[in-house]
Amino acid sequence: MAGGTRAAWDRLAPVFRAIAAKADDGEACVGYVGPRGAGHYVKMVHNGLEYGEMQLIAAVYDVLRRGGGATLEELAQTFEAWSREESHSYLLDITATILRHQDEQGRPLVDIILDEAEQKGTGQWMSIEALALGAPTPTITAAVEARMLSTLTAQRRRASRVLPGPPPRFSSDRMRLVEWARQALYASTIALYAQGFALLAAGSERHGYQIDRAAVARIWRNGCIIRSALLPVIAGALQRDDALGNLLLDDALGAAASCRHDGWRSFVKSAVAFGTPVPAIGASLAYYDAFRSERLPASLIQAQRDFFGQHGYRRVDAEGVFHTEWRDAGDSPDRR
Amino acid sequence: MAGGTRAAWDRLAPVFRAIAAKADDGEACVGYVGPRGAGHYVKMVHNGLEYGEMQLIAAVYDVLRRGGGATLEELAQTFEAWSREESHSYLLDITATILRHQDEQGRPLVDIILDEAEQKGTGQWMSIEALALGAPTPTITAAVEARMLSTLTAQRRRASRVLPGPPPRFSSDRMRLVEWARQALYASTIALYAQGFALLAAGSERHGYQIDRAAVARIWRNGCIIRSALLPVIAGALQRDDALGNLLLDDALGAAASCRHDGWRSFVKSAVAFGTPVPAIGASLAYYDAFRSERLPASLIQAQRDFFGQHGYRRVDAEGVFHTEWRDAGDSPDRR
Repeated sequence: MAGGTRAAWDRLAPVFRAIAAKADDGEACVGYVGPRGAGHYVKMVHNGLEYGEMQLIAAVYDVLRRGGGATLEELAQTFEAWSREESHSYLLDITATILRHQDEQGRPLVDIILDEAEQKGTGQWMSIEALALGAPTPTITAAVEARMLSTLTAQRRRASRVLPGPPPRFSSDRMRLVEWARQALYASTIALYAQGFALLAAGSERHGYQIDRAAVARIWRNGCIIRSALLPVIAGALQRDDALGNLLLDDALGAAASCRHDGWRSFVKSAVAFGTPVPAIGASLAYYDAFRSERLPASLIQAQRDFFGQHGYRRVDAEGVFHTEWRDAGDSPDRR
Repeated sequence: MAGGTRAAWDRLAPVFRAIAAKADDGEACVGYVGPRGAGHYVKMVHNGLEYGEMQLIAAVYDVLRRGGGATLEELAQTFEAWSREESHSYLLDITATILRHQDEQGRPLVDIILDEAEQKGTGQWMSIEALALGAPTPTITAAVEARMLSTLTAQRRRASRVLPGPPPRFSSDRMRLVEWARQALYASTIALYAQGFALLAAGSERHGYQIDRAAVARIWRNGCIIRSALLPVIAGALQRDDALGNLLLDDALGAAASCRHDGWRSFVKSAVAFGTPVPAIGASLAYYDAFRSERLPASLIQAQRDFFGQHGYRRVDAEGVFHTEWRDAGDSPDRR
């Protein structure tokens, strides 16, 4: 993911490729993506996606374990099966290995590790860039915020004793919950990448990077933490239409998300019902539902802004900016 | 909400108070909150909370109308009743007025206004500050992102024709949905303020503002867009304990949220079931559930970070930073 000039890249490419060729399908995880920091930018978005995927997997683990009552070995086998049969995801693979790991006394290591997620700041940096550009990445931001929230450990321990919730147990057939989880994870991941690739387009435009997004999707393979079977599908979609505004508008990717929407919804409803937080999965589903909304309640927000701040609004039936005197005679909310 | 020096404020205070005394309970919506930009900071957080509340109300409106089949007049009456009986919220009051407003042809104006929420950037600015400080404000960030998403109108229209969802209709007794909505709005608003006041504490600490948060809660009254009956309750909580780390840890505020958690969950489950996005309400509930989690799956994220990046982790049973060689012999994920 080098930046710099094209010429410099062309000189260095054979060296990078030789190093990268250790990866066994022969395709290197390096390439020229654009000038002046474009490589760093692509790496920043990569890390935001990484934060997102890790949080999605962590929430699925949490729901299936706390709510579903699954054992760590069952979870390891489940994640392995999902990765083998469908997603070929490096992060799912290593999660299975992690869940089986025991400490020197034979206790699951994941239970001994302090539950405060640290960060070196790249996810945060990406979320800030996305907010500054106006390119929404709610799944990634939710993941970044979830890490921050996890560090409020003393407060959480206190809250756990005073703030009640529902019994954290799934009362129906657990295998249904597992199937819903599989669908929720896959569909949420598609929505996550839709956000990340929309940010790449917006950032490339704003900063003049001319990033070839199909090439980026191809580069994110061996050696990349987010490598999975989804990336070649994304590369294909962007190769068919390099101006694709949102991955969800690609036939294959849109169908891959929407054919899972029932299970996705059932999973979120279950997590909400037994009080396990799924901020990033919930944000992915809300993104999907808002994105496919022909009409959103943003018109009410525009009316509110015009009411209290005279900010004006546009109409669906006429050009221009309008303002309404909302207060009727005798109706003066400022004085109540 | 002036910044500057205390002495300058003391000179100007009578003038501000005379202007503000137009508000009819005699308490002014101005006060000295701290030095060097503290007033601007408090105003920034105020605006973030305003973005949050507007999005919460907009989502409730959307769910009750799209999913619940409520008429605009029914919604106006509902919001008026909630405000009168419980929240005394300026934003709910003006929403009722807005929903009754018709255009020159007798059509509901809210249906004629373009559904693209604009912003002058203060919510965005606040979210960026919160991310930079590491003080999570997921409800506000979700509101900011929802506005951004609303502007992708052409893409949304296209997506609405190709991405399927469930039938957007509530099949049970509508009055139950209305009651759940009331509880969800109130509890989500408490979680929203918990985030905003935690940010005020973090910002005051970081920037040396010495902000008196109880005074801020008292100032946010007449003339403030976010004024409601919740603010005096918050002021009381902060007066009892000015070092309160999170409003949800106050007995009264914690109980006010938790006694509504059943309806709050039912509302989110309904919205998810019929495909209406409730990003900020969902983020508030996830915040509540994460905050009251004694243990979060952040330990898995720490393990993943240590697996692929040797970032180390801490343990619950020992001091120090640890690293594990996760890969067993024959198990080399980098090579698969």
